[in-house]
Amino acid sequence: MDALQTAFYYLDYAAVAVFAMSGALAAARLRQDIITFAFFAAITGVGGGTLRDLLISAPVFWVHRPGYIIVSLLAAGLVWVVRGKGWRFRALLWLDALGLSAYAVVGTAKALNMGVPAVSAVIMGVLTTAFGGIIRDVLAGEPNLLVRREIYITAAIVSATAFVLMQTIGLSFWPAAITGFACGFALRACAIHFNLSLPGFKVQGEE
Amino acid sequence: MDALQTAFYYLDYAAVAVFAMSGALAAARLRQDIITFAFFAAITGVGGGTLRDLLISAPVFWVHRPGYIIVSLLAAGLVWVVRGKGWRFRALLWLDALGLSAYAVVGTAKALNMGVPAVSAVIMGVLTTAFGGIIRDVLAGEPNLLVRREIYITAAIVSATAFVLMQTIGLSFWPAAITGFACGFALRACAIHFNLSLPGFKVQGEE
Amino acid sequence: MDALQTAFYYLDYAAVAVFAMSGALAAARLRQDIITFAFFAAITGVGGGTLRDLLISAPVFWVHRPGYIIVSLLAAGLVWVVRGKGWRFRALLWLDALGLSAYAVVGTAKALNMGVPAVSAVIMGVLTTAFGGIIRDVLAGEPNLLVRREIYITAAIVSATAFVLMQTIGLSFWPAAITGFACGFALRACAIHFNLSLPGFKVQGEE
Repeated sequence: MDALQTAFYYLDYAAVAVFAMSGALAAARLRQDIITFAFFAAITGVGGGTLRDLLISAPVFWVHRPGYIIVSLLAAGLVWVVRGKGWRFRALLWLDALGLSAYAVVGTAKALNMGVPAVSAVIMGVLTTAFGGIIRDVLAGEPNLLVRREIYITAAIVSATAFVLMQTIGLSFWPAAITGFACGFALRACAIHFNLSLPGFKVQGEE
Repeated sequence: MDALQTAFYYLDYAAVAVFAMSGALAAARLRQDIITFAFFAAITGVGGGTLRDLLISAPVFWVHRPGYIIVSLLAAGLVWVVRGKGWRFRALLWLDALGLSAYAVVGTAKALNMGVPAVSAVIMGVLTTAFGGIIRDVLAGEPNLLVRREIYITAAIVSATAFVLMQTIGLSFWPAAITGFACGFALRACAIHFNLSLPGFKVQGEE
Repeated sequence: MDALQTAFYYLDYAAVAVFAMSGALAAARLRQDIITFAFFAAITGVGGGTLRDLLISAPVFWVHRPGYIIVSLLAAGLVWVVRGKGWRFRALLWLDALGLSAYAVVGTAKALNMGVPAVSAVIMGVLTTAFGGIIRDVLAGEPNLLVRREIYITAAIVSATAFVLMQTIGLSFWPAAITGFACGFALRACAIHFNLSLPGFKVQGEE
């Protein structure tokens, strides 16, 4: 199990790095300077986990472990140096799908660990995943994650819920985590590949 | 007094439900999907109380009592199913006026109870009332509560301040709470009915 | 040293007042009413310090010392009464430069004092300085501090970093604080006077 624990540890940093890159890319689209790159990267990278920790009254995870901030800054630097090419954005989309599925499970697990009930723990998993991106979009003045009608938050919900359900029916941590990760990632992958979205609200009489 | 206590308890859930519906309506105006309905409903429903609890270092109220989230989700589902008709929006405007007056008093009372000084407690009451709606508007990309020049936050301030004053001059909890509620609701009702707003700032020389 | 301590104490209130005025000015530009003036002033005045305190798990500084809120409200009242004249905005720009340099040091010092590592402490200093203004801009629907490409956050970073470095190489508190303050202020002053900005990101092939 120790190898998995280590894998999980790196995965956590990897997810922060991926989210940080998506923040830096938002800064790139706005033709911003390196400081704004760094700020957007850090907010997007650690924002979701920060909100989760505040809500469950845990110490904020990165404050005493600045490695997460340093990883975010490196991610910003990488995006600055590499500059944008279309295929790189595409690669990031898939990395982001991995990050979201992993992070939804990590966030949920941390909340359950703090004694938070299942419903709230699922919400913590979803917030961990989505909140950084939502702030990024609000700050960048772009339509945010929530209103873009992609299957993104839905995938996080599926990951978090599957993980909780698997634990409830008696699976141990790792099988449950991997199932949660796989379900969310599969859904997000389909959404990206087939360009899926949920049906929008229709007002009576509208067609 | 026990009957009143119970009434208060239901009122708290009712206020969350009303705010959640206003969040779901924002999602409806944007023709969003059911997941965004749920997200907007939950944020608007519990957002204000969440900020209050973080500021006064209390455990966030809904994390260990997921009933509040479930009520928000049911409210979102109701708006989705019922769909919009003009008179229903109008009814919600009045429900929202009830919710705001009740919530300003509840938020202030909770802060006073935690030993927060009166000035800050009033602010907590106002934030409890208004913050959910402010986030809702920012996420929906609409002009937010603050800049719309309605008498909304003012009504919350009146409710919270009247409640604190009544307690200061020696009234016991319930008479003070009901006075606070009534003052804020009366002002908000006038604002809705007569379409009132406060005078805006004028720059020298402008007319 | 007691005189300096006292100076520092007043400086803290002065920085809140300056930030609050910049919040009230945003409300003035939107021709808002007095309540929105007050709200914008308070959020901009205490917003950054609030986030810092939440992140480092400290009690939020203004909740039990409502003097900060009262100062913010007085600042709002002042802007309302004085109304805008061009030279006054200019004066505020310079006051704001003083406030930012002072606040970056104060925020960093408070974080170090709570045992936060140096990297995170610098971030706390920067957030203390910038976060109030960022919320102000988001609520006012204006391009925010981050995306405006002024050398503002950079000056805060310089102040906070210089302060930490000076302490690391063995300077005692006040010399380190004054050095930090001076470095950040000098940079911000140059940025205002010479209208400097950092180079923006360029996509390959773009000119």
